[in-house]
This record gives sequence, C-alpha cells and structure tokens, in this order.
Amino acid sequence: MPVSPRRATLATVAASAGVSVATVSKVLNGRSDVAPATRSLVQSLLRQHEYVAPSPRRGEAVGLDTVEVQFDSDINAYSTEIIQGVVTAGGEVGVGVVVSVMKDGDRTARWARDLLSAGRRALIAVTSELSAGQLAALSRAHLPLVVIDPLNLPRARVTSVGSTNFAGGLAATQHLLSLGHRRIAYVGGPATAACNQARLHGYRAAMETEGAAVLPGYTRSGRFRYQDGLEHGAAVLALPEPPTAIFVGCDETALGVMEAARARGLRIPEDLSIVGFDDTQIARMASPPLTTVRQPLREMGGVALRTALRLAAGEKIDSHHVELATELVVRGSTADVTCAEHA
Amino acid sequence: MPVSPRRATLATVAASAGVSVATVSKVLNGRSDVAPATRSLVQSLLRQHEYVAPSPRRGEAVGLDTVEVQFDSDINAYSTEIIQGVVTAGGEVGVGVVVSVMKDGDRTARWARDLLSAGRRALIAVTSELSAGQLAALSRAHLPLVVIDPLNLPRARVTSVGSTNFAGGLAATQHLLSLGHRRIAYVGGPATAACNQARLHGYRAAMETEGAAVLPGYTRSGRFRYQDGLEHGAAVLALPEPPTAIFVGCDETALGVMEAARARGLRIPEDLSIVGFDDTQIARMASPPLTTVRQPLREMGGVALRTALRLAAGEKIDSHHVELATELVVRGSTADVTCAEHA
Repeated sequence: MPVSPRRATLATVAASAGVSVATVSKVLNGRSDVAPATRSLVQSLLRQHEYVAPSPRRGEAVGLDTVEVQFDSDINAYSTEIIQGVVTAGGEVGVGVVVSVMKDGDRTARWARDLLSAGRRALIAVTSELSAGQLAALSRAHLPLVVIDPLNLPRARVTSVGSTNFAGGLAATQHLLSLGHRRIAYVGGPATAACNQARLHGYRAAMETEGAAVLPGYTRSGRFRYQDGLEHGAAVLALPEPPTAIFVGCDETALGVMEAARARGLRIPEDLSIVGFDDTQIARMASPPLTTVRQPLREMGGVALRTALRLAAGEKIDSHHVELATELVVRGSTADVTCAEHA
Repeated sequence: MPVSPRRATLATVAASAGVSVATVSKVLNGRSDVAPATRSLVQSLLRQHEYVAPSPRRGEAVGLDTVEVQFDSDINAYSTEIIQGVVTAGGEVGVGVVVSVMKDGDRTARWARDLLSAGRRALIAVTSELSAGQLAALSRAHLPLVVIDPLNLPRARVTSVGSTNFAGGLAATQHLLSLGHRRIAYVGGPATAACNQARLHGYRAAMETEGAAVLPGYTRSGRFRYQDGLEHGAAVLALPEPPTAIFVGCDETALGVMEAARARGLRIPEDLSIVGFDDTQIARMASPPLTTVRQPLREMGGVALRTALRLAAGEKIDSHHVELATELVVRGSTADVTCAEHA
C-alpha cells in the first residue's frame, strides 16, 4: 500500500474526482442526491486516498452541516427547552442548528427543495400540523423529517418523538386524588392533538379508577396558550360546583388559570390546587412554584436531532415513534383538599 | 450588448471563472477572504454575464447563507425573544439563523476560523463577555461581529445593540415614586455589566431628584437569575427598614423577588410593589402580571441581524452602537404606597 505523506482531505478527493467538496461530503454522509456513477467514483477515490474522516471534536465549533428546527408559531417557553436540547446535541457532533418559524409559504414543493439546497441535512418540525402534501414534498426532496409532539398523526410512517402523555395525565390526576380532591377539572389543548388526547384520557382513567365523577363542564379544550388558561379558568371556576383542583395540559395555560383564580380572590394552593404539564422554566418561576408533569423536552430535542442525523446517513432506526418518560414534579401549587373545603 | 436567452446564475458565472459557487457568492457579498486576482476575474464575469441577483423572496425559505447567534449560557426567556427577532429578520431576507451556546473551547482562533469555514457570514453574540483574544480571532478571520447587551464594553470598536437602560431605570423608579413610595430598593445584575450600571444609575438619578434616600443595603448585585431574586429579595425584605417597593434589573430575578415576598406572607401589590426589566413572556404570565420596563428584544435581534449583514457586505454603518427605546409597561405588581403602609 502506498504511504501517504499527508492525510488526504475532502478537497484532495474532490480534486481527483473533478467534483465539488460538497459532493464528496454528500457521498460520505450517505445522501441520496448524488448520481450513482459519481457516487461510485467518489467512493473508490476515498478508498484509494485512504481518506479518514477527522474525528468529531467534542465541544468544538459547528461544521458545515446544518439541521433545521421549524416551529409552527412564535417561540415560547416550551420551544426554548426544545431548542436548548437540539442545540446541545448538535454542538456535541458538530452540526449547526438553524431555527425557523414555519410560514404559510412553507407548504410547497419549493420549500422542501430550498431547505435541501440550503444545505439542510434534515428537518425537525415541532408541534406542527403536517399536511399530506408537505410530507410528500419532503419525501420527494429526500429530506429526512423528525416530528416532535405532532399536533396530528398522519397515516404515513412519520418518525416522531414525544413523551408518555397518558402516564403523565394519570400521574397528575392521581396526585390530586391522593390529596383528597374529587372535584377535579381538566383544561387542555386542541381536542384533535394526539398529545392532548393522551393527557385527557390519563385524567379520565385516574378519575374512573377512583370513582370520581367528571362533572359537566369539567373538561375543556384550548390551544396551549396563556389566554386559554385565563378564559377556561374563569369559566370552570364560575360553575355551580367549581372544582377544588385543576389539571392543566401545559404550563403556560396553567399560569393563566393561576391568574384567573387570583382574579376571583382564590389563593393557591389553599383554595385551589393546580397541576401543569411540561416543566418549562416558567413552572419553577411561578408564584407559588407550579406542581407539574415534567416532559424531558431537552432530551426530546436531543433524540430528535440524533434520529434525524441517522436518517440522513441512511441508517435504520429501531422505531418510528419514541416516547420518553414523564415525571411528576411536586412544588407549591398543590395541597390537601381540606384546605379548599374549609376555605 | 448580447441578449442572454436565460438569466445567468451563480453557477454559470462560477463555471466560466473556474471557481466554486461559494467563491462567486463571497465576491458578491464583498467578503475579504478571496484572492484579489480571483475577485477581479469573478467581478468581470459577473458584469459580462449581466448577472442580476434574484430579488429576496419575502417570507420564503432560507438560503445558503447563515448567521450564527451565540449565547453565553443556557437559553432563557430573554434569549427566546432575541432568537425570535433574529429568526424573523433572517426569514425576511433569506438568511438562516444558527443558534448555539458558547463553550469554553469557543475562545480560540480555531473557533473563529471554524465559524467562517462553516459558512457563517457573521456572528451575533448575546450578553457575552468577550475577551481581547476573542475579538482579535474574529477580526483575523474577517468574521463580522455584532454584540447584543454586552456584559463588558471592550475598548475596541465593537458593534453593539442595546436599549436605553438608563432611561428605563429612571422611568421604573419614577413610576414607584409617583405612587408615593420612598423606600425603594434595587436588585440588579452584575456590578460590572454595562446594562446593569445604566439601570442602577437611572434608579439613583430618580431617587436623588425626588430627595428619596437610598438606605444601606438597598442596592444589590446578582447575575440576572431567578435564584438571585429569591436570595436578595429575602435579604432586602429582612432589613430593619424594609422597602415598600423593589425595582428589579430583569424579569426573571423579579419573579424570584415575588416568590421571596410570598414566602414572607407579603401580598403583591398590596404589601410590596415590584417593577421588572425586559418584558419577556414570563412578565405577563406572572401572578399578578408584572409591571416592567419593556426592552424591544425582538427589534434588537432584528437590528443586530441587519447590521451584521451590512458589515458582512462591506457596507458602512452609521454608528457602532445603537440603543432602542425602552418603555414602562404598567401591570398588576405595583400599587399606591398607602396599601403597603397601612398593611
């Protein structure tokens, strides 16, 4: 075997093959948008030059590769945790993370092609409603997709990352039941959202097991916003038999419910117990700090990134849907029902 | 002049010049890392081919160009607003925004070169302490830098974007004085941070003008974290003459002060008025909603991005430091002093 005086670089191989460095990089990364003949040529030259990829330098600067994280609306406390997780995982493997907010124009075939030509290796879509047309456009562009907490679950085999929403809803409600509450309401997200359905049914399962009735008007749907908490919180507290505890489908909405309670002169947790969902930064900063179901959002971001890169490299993945464990975090917004009953 | 049947693309020009598309793009963007001879050749070919850059497609997908936004620590409510502003502005001009968190290794010459070779056109650093070595590395790599709310102000002419911190501190304190408060404390950020100094001195100026004494122990320095609010809030409320109002240097710390007050059995605003700084999403979600000084963080992100792109294109900018206006937003955490005095 010839002894190379210097280690071959991508540029050496590109020059020998008469192609661009980007093309060599695509072949190395197993991308499909390279003509078969070119791929063979590059692969044989890589072998001939005994090309060795530089080992990833943990904790150093990002590389040429980028993955795009798209949110369906403005960035909030939930998105912040996801971004942190994806960025950390990207930093560990030298992949840059481009953050964007999906626009109305981002539903076309051009959108998918533009992402690819901009050098994105994969797309991570967060809490988005993905149309069949959009999925087809991504598929035609050979751009791998991983979805975090999809609002709808399309029939196609979309790779997704979520958390154990049913178990989380169950744990939240069992916590309130164990404190002696029976009149427990649920203020959740969109009725059609898969994650919301699982949380609602976790709540229903816990109530049923304990023989606690879900009174009329006790389950409500919002859009996971603060405003929904203000409105549904006020409405549910104005019922003839108001709840002594409310399980809320996300932290942001829980803070709205908290404010609705304060506006009615109710103290938390003395007069009303509240449990949130997510454990974003706003949960620990609420006053009182919010008891909530922790979704491992950073870990979900990390898993989404690593899964996206595996798909981009043409590797097989074990499962098209992964759920990470939720965990109840008890803080100051929940208390024994006797407080509320004697108030 | 010859009539071109088809509009020339970057690829056409690159092919004629025998250089890569990236090189043509660098010349178009006025980047300095192109050999003079190559630059002349490409420029003459651009003219010969009557190259017209495609007009930016507003609201469409991101391009090959990326700008990197680096934070000095974990992403919080403040960073979320900045990211939103940079991402929105980037989307308008087709520039991808890479988000990252600065690591210890990111202090070297290699770090700056890696950013450049990864295709970043500019770096936006947020609330970072930049060393002289770091600035020199960026300068040697010809990578334009814009700093948002720098924690230190180096002597070199660094381009930066901030807000009118002194005016904000003045307005917050005047608001409390106008409600009849005289015993007003200040819980701020790092004593050495330029933005904190300006807020503190705005507070001092308002107190002095009104003849209100700043009692011993009434001004305190933290690190703009929630935990600082818990600790300094508890300490200042335990003073022999506790304040009836506290102006806090950021919203996150203000929420900590709010919780410290609640832990002592104080009601807000009846027993204690609190004003924050930033107007992040957590301010309007606090219970009661937080009166605060609004920094136009999204606009600051947008200005930083546009300034960075102008620097990358070799354009002159009007000023090396821009401050956008702050504005007092009155919500539910402040009330007349008579409430506190009669409590």
